[in-house]
Amino acid sequence: MILQPWFITGLAEGESCFSVSFTQRKKLKLGIETRPSFSISLNQRDLDLLKLVHAYFKCGSIRYSQSDRTYKYEVRSLDDLVKRIIPHFKEYALHGSKLQDFLKFEQICKKVRANLHRSSKYLPEIIEIAYQMNPSGKRKHSKEDLLKILDKIVV
Amino acid sequence: MILQPWFITGLAEGESCFSVSFTQRKKLKLGIETRPSFSISLNQRDLDLLKLVHAYFKCGSIRYSQSDRTYKYEVRSLDDLVKRIIPHFKEYALHGSKLQDFLKFEQICKKVRANLHRSSKYLPEIIEIAYQMNPSGKRKHSKEDLLKILDKIVV
Repeated sequence: MILQPWFITGLAEGESCFSVSFTQRKKLKLGIETRPSFSISLNQRDLDLLKLVHAYFKCGSIRYSQSDRTYKYEVRSLDDLVKRIIPHFKEYALHGSKLQDFLKFEQICKKVRANLHRSSKYLPEIIEIAYQMNPSGKRKHSKEDLLKILDKIVV
Repeated sequence: MILQPWFITGLAEGESCFSVSFTQRKKLKLGIETRPSFSISLNQRDLDLLKLVHAYFKCGSIRYSQSDRTYKYEVRSLDDLVKRIIPHFKEYALHGSKLQDFLKFEQICKKVRANLHRSSKYLPEIIEIAYQMNPSGKRKHSKEDLLKILDKIVV
């Protein structure tokens, strides 16, 4: 059984997350790793549905999150994001606030694809866009912290 | 703009609730009012999307819930549930645990349509099915409380 494309978009409207995380990595030139990801989290009783989502996109993986007893389908590979996830949501468009998140996510993936996240000129712009996404989500670093790390590296 | 039917089902998979509530009403013959309802709750920033859902189903209403800052689209009219909501989900089927809720909901709506909720013979069965739905939801009355109310009335 294969899920309908519009069903995927409707499910994603409520249950998905387009996210760009930043991690401090001293070994990297700019000291910050940029990692875009797409995920859908569902209660453990809906693992079978998540497997159908996985089969639909033909990429990513499913893992169990003990803390909130959910299964999370997640795509982190930039190649898969650009070739499989983004094209789906361009053809079968989201609505409302999730659409806004998606458009920012797409912008960032394009910039990361062009390696701009490795340039001290463009990374602040990427951070700026990422911090406008998912306003209710929690982040490990504040935007200001990240920009300070960058400043230190650049000076 | 009109939403796609499969988008509605995908959204409902994550964000909808098929519910049957029971309220003590001394004026009723059996002392218990049976009320099926279908709802979709979204964050206030997605009110426009909820308006599109409302336009799609051509029934129900939207109201604001101050307690959790969401807007809720809700259909309570049995006629609308039977003629508009249930046929949609029969044609564009849900998956997983939400499908199980829907099938029980459909069963109950049929029984209520046939006025079986007003019969002391059938109401316990309706209560039994309803309490198998939405296992994570909270209820005002326990199943045992309701059956006790019924017992008193019948005796």
